[in-house]
Amino acid sequence: MRNVCVVGTGLIGGSLMRAAKAAGRTVYGTAASDGTAAAAVADGFDVTTDLDAALRRAAADDALVVLAVPLPAVEGVLARVDDVAPTVRLTDAVSVKVAVADAVATYAPHARYVGGHPMAGTAESGWAAGDGALFRGAAWVVVADDGADPEVFRDVAELAWECGSRVVPAASDEHDLAVAKISHLPHLLAAVLAAVGAGEPGRDDSDLPLALSASSFADGTRVAGTRPELVLAMCEGNRSALLAAVDEALGRLGVMRGALASTGGLAATVNAGYAARQRWASTREPLGLEVSLDGPDWLAELRELGRRGDVVSGWKA
Amino acid sequence: MRNVCVVGTGLIGGSLMRAAKAAGRTVYGTAASDGTAAAAVADGFDVTTDLDAALRRAAADDALVVLAVPLPAVEGVLARVDDVAPTVRLTDAVSVKVAVADAVATYAPHARYVGGHPMAGTAESGWAAGDGALFRGAAWVVVADDGADPEVFRDVAELAWECGSRVVPAASDEHDLAVAKISHLPHLLAAVLAAVGAGEPGRDDSDLPLALSASSFADGTRVAGTRPELVLAMCEGNRSALLAAVDEALGRLGVMRGALASTGGLAATVNAGYAARQRWASTREPLGLEVSLDGPDWLAELRELGRRGDVVSGWKA
Repeated sequence: MRNVCVVGTGLIGGSLMRAAKAAGRTVYGTAASDGTAAAAVADGFDVTTDLDAALRRAAADDALVVLAVPLPAVEGVLARVDDVAPTVRLTDAVSVKVAVADAVATYAPHARYVGGHPMAGTAESGWAAGDGALFRGAAWVVVADDGADPEVFRDVAELAWECGSRVVPAASDEHDLAVAKISHLPHLLAAVLAAVGAGEPGRDDSDLPLALSASSFADGTRVAGTRPELVLAMCEGNRSALLAAVDEALGRLGVMRGALASTGGLAATVNAGYAARQRWASTREPLGLEVSLDGPDWLAELRELGRRGDVVSGWKA
Repeated sequence: MRNVCVVGTGLIGGSLMRAAKAAGRTVYGTAASDGTAAAAVADGFDVTTDLDAALRRAAADDALVVLAVPLPAVEGVLARVDDVAPTVRLTDAVSVKVAVADAVATYAPHARYVGGHPMAGTAESGWAAGDGALFRGAAWVVVADDGADPEVFRDVAELAWECGSRVVPAASDEHDLAVAKISHLPHLLAAVLAAVGAGEPGRDDSDLPLALSASSFADGTRVAGTRPELVLAMCEGNRSALLAAVDEALGRLGVMRGALASTGGLAATVNAGYAARQRWASTREPLGLEVSLDGPDWLAELRELGRRGDVVSGWKA
């Protein structure tokens, strides 16, 4: 089993270290502060604040390096990678994929990088919040962009399986658009709905709407209660894809507004939404498929598998 | 106890007949079809298909007539009211209030009308789905527009209490805007979110977004699964207020889109949504207040009570 070097020991990195250690891996990592490193060491983990030393060790034992830092910290780490471990096996756990791939191409162009996104989390953060079971049952996107290194793709997928996740292959840009549509846009629509319904103190003085609100408003605004810094980090980091998703929503809302104002008819909007929700409700269980990591089209085939809603469950002999 | 004449014996009217009878009232009503009338009679209720006869009886015994028909059927019933019981005590259970008030002013201008909206319902419909407990714990809006007859206001409120509801006084237009914001807009945003996320067959061929979707998408699209004919009836009937609510949402989304495209910053949107959801979450229990139905400002005071989120619980001696 390949060693794992985790850069960043917050909720995601800390959970990953626990899960990989429980699976029998040799795991070590780096923390940004002495306090966090000491807490991890006290819990029996091999964590230092010396990033260069950890990266050199990863280069020496051909470990898989996992970037588990927030997006704004990625460039700085990549510069160190390029300096001390330029061709290391590299993945990440950041929630957007095009921005990280671009940063790798710029700052650590020789790294053997295959992006990843374990789609798990809680409202907590920090080493102490880590949980080796965090990734169980979650989708773990493994990026299948052209040029991906099949060995590192295998490394990332096997780490994801050990953490109990489903491996969903996807192109970076398709991943970013998908999460914009099903995670980031819902947060923004919830925020707008909450503001329209509850009003703002000093601007809307009537509590009548809230007094009459029921489950449609409660459900539609639930994620507006998420801590704003978490929402901003994930949405603002996915700006380009989110803009496309917002524009699609605005386009549909504009057509609806026009119909409401002209004929008063909302059937097109309501029927399309109903059909879409039925499509969601009838989503089948993903098929777990064994795939090949060679051949002329292996990456295109993986992307197609992900688009069908299926997952990678093993390797063809 | 004043007799009650219920016009329309579907889910709402049928539930109201059961609740009022259980409270000890003399209740009678009219159904649109022989089959429904027969079903109600078989259940022990005094229901006929002869609308004129029922309205004449209501005029003779000074009963409260409750219109519990869909909005498109209101005008026809009002024309009969004007013909055979022009000054009857009249309320309704339609989910929009300005449109009904306008229809009463046009078609039954001498009726002693005070609008109502019991905010309860299920996905079911028809006499058999009726339930005397349907209104328990629900808000029952009683319209406090200028000119309202205090005796009929009292009649409607007392009927609402007997059904187990909270009496929320409101102006017709404020009611319509409130329900547009907290009920109709949530349905339309859910429909748009579902269509963006799930795509449409033939237009969006990737199931990747649905495969990656989690609770934010599930919650944000839940009411998109409501039967389209129900959503269309309530939204299209509230066209004018809904247009205002949609335009407020579009205005907020447009500002957000501009910020995302220019600076990339979403803090204004996300913080306003968070504050609004907190405001919703900290909504206090309504105060139940005894009110007076006379004096120069009794209607304005009732409307203000509703805007504060409180309810009418009785009459001042």
